[in-house]
This record gives sequence, C-alpha cells and structure tokens, in this order.
Amino acid sequence: MSEKVLIIGAVALGPKVACRLRRINPDIDITMIDRDSLISYGGCGIPYYVGGDVQELEGLYSTIAHVKRDVSFFKNVKGFNVLTRVEALEIKRAEKKVVVRYLDEDRLEELDYDKLVIATGATPMRPPFQGSDLPKVHVVSNLHHASAIKTAISNGEVERAVVIGAGAIGIEMAEALTDLWGVETTIVEMADQVLPQALGRDMARIVEKKLEDKGVKLLLSQKVIKINGDMENGADSVEVINQLNSTPTTLPCDMVIIAAGVRPNFELAVGAGLAIGRNRGILVNKCMQTTDPNIYAGGDCAEFANLVSGLDCVMPLGSLANRQGRIIAININGGNEKFTGSVGAFCIKVFDMGVAKAGLTFNQAKAAGFDPVYAVVAQSDRAHFIPDADFMFMKLIADRKTRTVLGVEAAGPQGDAVKARVDAVAPLLKFGVDVSEICNLEVSYSPPYASAMDIVNNAGNALDNTLNGNLKSVDTFEFVELLEQDNIKVLDVRSHIQSAPFVEKYPKQWINIPQDELRERYVELTAVLNELREFPLYLICGTGPRSYEAQVFLNSKGITNTRNVQGGYGMILAIHQPLV
Amino acid sequence: MSEKVLIIGAVALGPKVACRLRRINPDIDITMIDRDSLISYGGCGIPYYVGGDVQELEGLYSTIAHVKRDVSFFKNVKGFNVLTRVEALEIKRAEKKVVVRYLDEDRLEELDYDKLVIATGATPMRPPFQGSDLPKVHVVSNLHHASAIKTAISNGEVERAVVIGAGAIGIEMAEALTDLWGVETTIVEMADQVLPQALGRDMARIVEKKLEDKGVKLLLSQKVIKINGDMENGADSVEVINQLNSTPTTLPCDMVIIAAGVRPNFELAVGAGLAIGRNRGILVNKCMQTTDPNIYAGGDCAEFANLVSGLDCVMPLGSLANRQGRIIAININGGNEKFTGSVGAFCIKVFDMGVAKAGLTFNQAKAAGFDPVYAVVAQSDRAHFIPDADFMFMKLIADRKTRTVLGVEAAGPQGDAVKARVDAVAPLLKFGVDVSEICNLEVSYSPPYASAMDIVNNAGNALDNTLNGNLKSVDTFEFVELLEQDNIKVLDVRSHIQSAPFVEKYPKQWINIPQDELRERYVELTAVLNELREFPLYLICGTGPRSYEAQVFLNSKGITNTRNVQGGYGMILAIHQPLV
Repeated sequence: MSEKVLIIGAVALGPKVACRLRRINPDIDITMIDRDSLISYGGCGIPYYVGGDVQELEGLYSTIAHVKRDVSFFKNVKGFNVLTRVEALEIKRAEKKVVVRYLDEDRLEELDYDKLVIATGATPMRPPFQGSDLPKVHVVSNLHHASAIKTAISNGEVERAVVIGAGAIGIEMAEALTDLWGVETTIVEMADQVLPQALGRDMARIVEKKLEDKGVKLLLSQKVIKINGDMENGADSVEVINQLNSTPTTLPCDMVIIAAGVRPNFELAVGAGLAIGRNRGILVNKCMQTTDPNIYAGGDCAEFANLVSGLDCVMPLGSLANRQGRIIAININGGNEKFTGSVGAFCIKVFDMGVAKAGLTFNQAKAAGFDPVYAVVAQSDRAHFIPDADFMFMKLIADRKTRTVLGVEAAGPQGDAVKARVDAVAPLLKFGVDVSEICNLEVSYSPPYASAMDIVNNAGNALDNTLNGNLKSVDTFEFVELLEQDNIKVLDVRSHIQSAPFVEKYPKQWINIPQDELRERYVELTAVLNELREFPLYLICGTGPRSYEAQVFLNSKGITNTRNVQGGYGMILAIHQPLV
Repeated sequence: MSEKVLIIGAVALGPKVACRLRRINPDIDITMIDRDSLISYGGCGIPYYVGGDVQELEGLYSTIAHVKRDVSFFKNVKGFNVLTRVEALEIKRAEKKVVVRYLDEDRLEELDYDKLVIATGATPMRPPFQGSDLPKVHVVSNLHHASAIKTAISNGEVERAVVIGAGAIGIEMAEALTDLWGVETTIVEMADQVLPQALGRDMARIVEKKLEDKGVKLLLSQKVIKINGDMENGADSVEVINQLNSTPTTLPCDMVIIAAGVRPNFELAVGAGLAIGRNRGILVNKCMQTTDPNIYAGGDCAEFANLVSGLDCVMPLGSLANRQGRIIAININGGNEKFTGSVGAFCIKVFDMGVAKAGLTFNQAKAAGFDPVYAVVAQSDRAHFIPDADFMFMKLIADRKTRTVLGVEAAGPQGDAVKARVDAVAPLLKFGVDVSEICNLEVSYSPPYASAMDIVNNAGNALDNTLNGNLKSVDTFEFVELLEQDNIKVLDVRSHIQSAPFVEKYPKQWINIPQDELRERYVELTAVLNELREFPLYLICGTGPRSYEAQVFLNSKGITNTRNVQGGYGMILAIHQPLV
C-alpha cells in the first residue's frame, strides 16, 4: 500500500507540498484539508484586490491561465484530494491519526497518515482592547476579509478609515484605501516608525514621508485604547493615546483595519507535544521536520533560523512558503533537501516608491549582540545623464570588529531597481562576507540601469571608509536637530548658487566654500575652528561624496574634527522638511 | 620625498585610481597623462548622446553636479595634475621613466615614476577590409567620434546607416539612430546571432526579434567585403556576403559605424616587456600588478580571470574599471586589496526591453570543458494579477556532473527587474554553487515586484528537474523546425479555446487534451503513440509548467518518450513567428 500523506492547510505551503509531491511520486496517497471553503489563494494580493488592481476576488485564487484553484482543479489537474470545510482538531501521534471535524456536517472523523504536514499558517492578532470584535473592524488575512472590506468600500460606506499597525499589510492597505478609493486614512502605530521589524529609521522615514505626501495620516508612538461603537452600527471611532506625552485623540471612522501582525497557528502542534520556538512558531530542523520526524511544518506557522542573527524567527511570506513546500515534498519522498533558514529579504511598494531590505536592521544587529556600523548613501539609480535617473537611498550595515555585512536597506522611485540592489546582497548574507565583497560586488552595468560605480558598490565603499576611519559621519536626524538648536557650524561645499539660500537662512551657522575653492581657501576656516573648539565642523554637499572629499582634504591639513552629513542634502530632502 | 605615481590614461580607470589615491594619501605625488584633450568621460554614454538622451557632449564628462571634469577640476577639486595631449611612447622600466611626447609642441620628455599605472584602454577594431578608413565611416570610442556622428545625423546627412557588428555598442548605436533620428539602419554581423559573446541563442533571438520589430534590419552570418566610396564623398555603400550561401548584397548608406569589438592597447606594455595574455590584454595578478610589481594595469587594457571558466578574459566595462581603480589605489598606498576576476555580468537596454547575463553561455561553457545543461523558463515578472505584469524569460546553465551553476541569462520588458534576477545570481557564480542554491535563492518578494515563486527560483527548479531526469525538454528552435517539417505529434494541454486554431492549422500534428482532462483521457493517446513508435510526443502549454506536469503524469502511466517545449508558446512568440 502506498504511503499516506496528510496536509493540514491549503493556502500556500500545503498546495505546494502536494503538487510537487505528486509530480515526483505518482503513487503516493495525498490528502489535503482546510477549514475554509476558499483555498490556494494569494493572501499577499489582498491589498491589490482592495485597491482595484485585481478586479475580481477570483483573481486571487486563479492560475495565470485563469483557472480557479479549487477542489476539482486539484483533483483533475494536480491529482490529489482536497477536503474543504474540514478542521483538524487533534493530532494523535502515537496512532498517526488526525481527528477532524467536517464543519458543514458537524461530524468527527479520524484521518490516518504516514507523513503529516502542518501548514496551518498564522492568524492576524487582535490586540486585547475593547471593540476589536465590533462590526466594521476587519483583519486582513483570508478572502472573506478581503471581500468584506472591498464590499463596504465600494458601496460607499467608508469615508474615513483607521489602520492599526504600520507593518507591510497596514501600509499596503492604507495605500489601497487612499489611492483608488480616496478614503481618508490614518495609520496608528505603537512604535516610533513604520515597518519597525523591517527598516532602520532612515529608510522608515523615507516611507513615512511618502505616505504623508500621498495623504495618509500617520500617528506614530500612539497606542490604541479602544474602538468605540456598538454591535448594531459597528465601529465609529478609535481612541488612541500618544505614548510620549499621553495626549489622547479620538479618530472618527467608518472602518477599522487591524494589521497588528500575525501569530503562528501553533495550537495543533502544541496539543501534539511538538516543540514550539521563542516566536511561538513550530520548530523545524533543516529538513523542515518538527520534533516528530514524521511531521513536517512550514510557511507562516513554522519557526526557523535567521541566518544573520542566528536566532530563530517566523516570516509570514508566500515566497518562503513556496520554497519550503518544495523542500518538504522532496524530503517526504525520501530526499534530503535542506532549508537552512532565511536572511529576511523583504520588499514593499509604497505608492510610487519601492523599498527593500535583507538581513538585520541596526537595532536588530545590536540586539543580536553585534557592534553595528552603518553607512548611508544617496545616488542616482541610473547613469546621471539618463533622463529618468532619480535618487536611490541605500544603507549598509556591518559588524565593527569582524567587518561582516549584516544588513542592507534601500528605497527609491524605481522599485525594481531598488529590489535589484538588495537582492544582489541578500544571497551573500548567509555566507558572512566582508564589506570588501560589497565594494567589489559584480553587478551588471549599462547606463540605463546603473552608474558605472553602482550604488551598491558605493555603499560598500562608504562603509569601508567608515570602518577604516577615513569617513566620519553624522546622520541627518542628528544634524537637522543640531541645526535647529542653532549651535553648530556647517561647511557647505556645493556651488555658491546652491548654497546661497542656506547661508542666508542660517547666517551664523552656514559657511560656503565650493569644492573647487577649498584647497585654496581652507585657511579661511581658522576663525571658525577657533570658535568651535572641541565641537565638530559639519560638512555637507548634495549627496555626500564631495563633502567626504572635503573631509579627507581637511584632515590632511590638520582639521580633523569634522562630520560628513550622510547622504547629503538629498537625504535631508528625502526624510525631513526642506531646510530652506 | 613623497612617492611619484604616474598614470597613463585619463578616461575611467586612471581618474578613479588618482582620486581614490589622493583621498587616502594627501602627500603622494600624482600625475595623470592622456593623449586626448577630452578626458574622464563616460564612453558608455555615447549611444545615449547620439540618441538624444544626453543633450550636450559635456554631459558625458560632467559630474552629477554639472561640473566639467577637466584639467582644472582635477587640479582644484581632486588635487592632482593632469597633462592632456601628452602621449606615452615608451616605458623605461630599469630607470623607472616614461618617455612622453607633448603632442601640441612635438616635444619629448621623460617622466619619473615610483609606481606606474597603465590605463590605456582599448581601441575599436577596424577590420582589414577596403574602405574602412573612408570619410563617413566611424568607430565609437571617444568623444570626437561621438561628436562627428551626431553632427552628421543632426545635419540631416544620414538617411541610411550600416552598423558593422551586433555587440552591445552596435545594438545601442542602432537603437540611437533608429529611435530618435529615424535613420534606416542595418546591422551586419558575422556570427549567426546578435551579442555572440554575451548570450545564448534563445535570448539572442529575443533581442533580434525586438530589433526587427523596431525597424532595425539585421543581417546575420554576413561578412563585410568592402566599403565603397571615395575620399571626397565618403562611404556610400557596404558590400556584404552571406556566409551560408555566398549571396552578395550591397547596402547603400550615408554612414557606416564599425562596432566590431575593441582590442586592448597593449603596445606600451609589450614594449616594456610586460606579459600579455591570450586576449592580448596586459596580464595582472589579483593585486592588479603587471609582471613588474611597480607597474599596475586595469580597465579595458587589462586581462584577468573569468571566475567561472577559469580562463583569462578582457572586459571593456566602465563598472569594472571603477572597481579595479579603487583596488589599485589602495594597493599603491600599501594596501592589499584583491580583484579576483569577473563573472562577466552584463546588461543592455534594447529599445523597451532589458537583457542581462552573468557567467558563461552554453557554448562558452562547452568550450571551457564543462558538460552544460540548461533550462529556459518563461514567467510573469510580477504576481500575475498585477496589471503591468509581463513575460520575463530566463535561462540557467549548470554542469551536468557537478550541478555547479555556470551561467544565467534573462530578458524582458522591465529592464530593472531583469537586472534584479541576474544580479542576484551573479555574485554567487564565483563560489561554484549547486543548482539547489538557486532553487532556494532568497530574493525579496512582494506582488508588485515578483511572483511568490520567483522566476529565478523556478529557473533553478526547472534545471534541477532537468538534471534529475524528471523534465525532458526540447527547445523552441528544434520544435518549430520539426513542426514545419510536418513529422511530429504535439499534445497541447491548454484549453480548447486556446488550442483550437493550432489544431485547425496543424490537423495531423496537433492534439489537444486540456490539462484538467488529461488524467481521464490520456488513454486516447494510444493510437498516436503507436503511430509515433520511437519518436517522442511533444508537449506544449502557455509557458511550460502545465506541459511539465503532463509529462510527469504521462511518465507515471508508462508514456515516457515525451519532450516538453521549453518556455511553452510564450517562448515561441518571443523568438519565432506566431504559429497561427
């Protein structure tokens, strides 16, 4: 008799395991169950359905050839059975059985398995404040949620919405609501920045500025106290409190979307005595086996190694689920394929901008015990003479002592180009490469797609210069704050014309000596330097390289206490209000 | 006394060495010489100047802040001396002197050096046919050539042009002439495909189809015999001969552009007794030193290892010159930075399409002694439900025995997205990774930028399936040829509607059993299989995965002699004439 494989969960990982397994083994007995009626959908497409890019809900569970991925599709095309509206209640490991309930018949049954796959996914968190279960309060996880949200909006019932949480889904939903539907949208986030799990504050601030520019209201460092409303009319406002100054605010709204993260659906595994990790995901080894070798787990419910920090993590991403699914299928069939973990590669479109990252943020690196050092560069995303060239921003992080690259983040208007830079670094992160590997990273070059010295190489160079002490930087947050406090001196090495409005606005602080005059005129700085005493002289230009050149030159003349504004005025414009 | 560094050549590598060296060493004595008056220009931008993206010639030798990179810029801003119109004639290694001629004064002088950098670049080849030195015959290398070409075109003197050579520069120039100026342009290429150094025939054919669709006439496998014309009126036609059938053709024209490759300027090095490689580039070690440790070389004149083939190569690319320049500067200053070689990452824009590659083509891999196996996949470049999703094509090549990835090529309408896929693989090639590393390659994912199973992962999977024998393919060239010869049977597993016109046009060859009916109806194939005897049954669908699924299923039913059309009908449409 052929081996029985039972798969619990039919969204992303489950179908991938089953389809691959059938392809490599025509005889194996495969059954997949799911408590929902709608299966095998692209959950990550929900914001694009709500936002109108995807017209019909069916688009999220159809193949590229417009065939619905339903029970008969899997039966006829893929060659295995799917039972929908069947919920797994208990795993009896000793007997190799799973107790299930047929939800429509309220009937219990026990299904046998030789190999079991837990693909139960994750559940959106509903923080324990009052009102989170009111009508008009939505989470974004399955197609029923998607449909409910879009129906309400397209019926014209939503003029104002509050999105709770500024992670990827919160941001994507805010864009969907604003961009197509013109819904007045406010995002409330407890952390002091958007995408706190994904980005450091520089890139996060670029995203925040983009959201604000596009009309999304952003309340950071604000905590939701409760959602007001009643069961009849649903939610009508959200009460938040500013965590910094305790100011309360009430946000009237016709819809609330809770996007406060997800938690792995681990209950079945816990009930069966399988090990659970520090993030409450199901622990798996490199073969994707749980602590019971006959039971595999993967996708949003599983926990595995972050290959940069070495710590276990969960990562609810359809791409990971697909890759893991293939590996599980191979291993069930007797193979020995390894999933070693993830470096946390991530990207998101934010209106007309793309953002991507891989590895650890500065804070995550610190928390993982590294001594992180970073460089931020601003540079044209194509050869500067190509007409649609625009600024891209990149941050590269390494450990001070070992020079091992720990993380990379980038943002810019050409999303694919942003992704290209991060994806070129991401696959190297698990190898623990030295910064010089990024300085010399061989990426393809042609003027319409890159500068001859690519921004990724320059980010490596800037970090290398920082690590070896040639480049001493200040980030724009500190610089702008100091400038507002009126107590610094700034040497601007841009042209007179570019610099003039700054000199006029900040007459006591702002000095201009253009780059091509500095070698002759640096002696003029003597008076300023005397005045500064132990305080540094701040150097700025358009994006950073000219002021770096100035820093190196001044250093050679004994003027060593200088700080280069990272990313220059380009970076300031991307994340702060214009200075003039 | 400080050390004297002399740099011969002031285009890409030379200035990079000098600028970096000055930044890390304020005292070292740097002199850079060039025989030209225009220096430090972006030669790779010339097609974009001719094509109008760059308005003024100055744009090619200005900084991003619109400052001209001339002698005074390097003096005042960068802090070193440049002597233009000074040609190096001889290196006297024993005396550490270079004999130079001041071209405008016709005066000789000897310049001392402690460290010498040869950055003499490369010279466009002028094949030895008659007429290659006539007026109106141009090469594309320096700004004088660029200016002459653009002047002639913008004066309305050029209605018809012939471009000799279908490498990157030939193609970029053909696009420039056609796209902005409407010049009737013919490319003549000796090889049987465009970009013979860069691409295998699948991707090359995609480029060829794009060129033809945009009105560029393409003569492949054609050799130039001579250029007709006289010294007074210049070239007026090009005579070519078809190398396959010896048919001669005369191409009337008002301009000829020779883009037949470049050769390293090695004469100085040879004269000084330095070692030259098999490509006539100056041999350097990993520190970029020639066989004389006091003499460095880099950029277009240097020869270094291809990290996949292990063979030495030359690569005239501004990006490599910049990265090598930084390394040379560090090493001259006492550092120990290594340039280990190149994997040949390359990209090009061809009208509204991007093409990229890294590593070896199939033929290059074969020539280097590998036993290459490849897979070609066609897939949406974004989640298929995103409105601007379009096909991307990718080819992945590995060695059969070791499963080591040898090369990757991709093409598609979103050039940055194409580059993203190739650049994610390129940095791994030098490590000699197994194909499974590409199956599991962690690239960032979000629906606007990728499918959940990215095309790069699927290319890995298809190649893995090929290597382990599950996927047996035929490429579209062979398939289309066989179909035209009327002697094959094709099983189309697309829907009835999609398949109907093919069944009608090829009634004896084309059979349609949609994917979702195959499990029930495969017995209907018995008669066909009897008829086929030892010949394979060809399987096709839209892009390949459904016919692969069919192949696996039929295999399980004992129908083992099948071939899957790589990339499906999508690939056929991209590189052949439509079948119906």
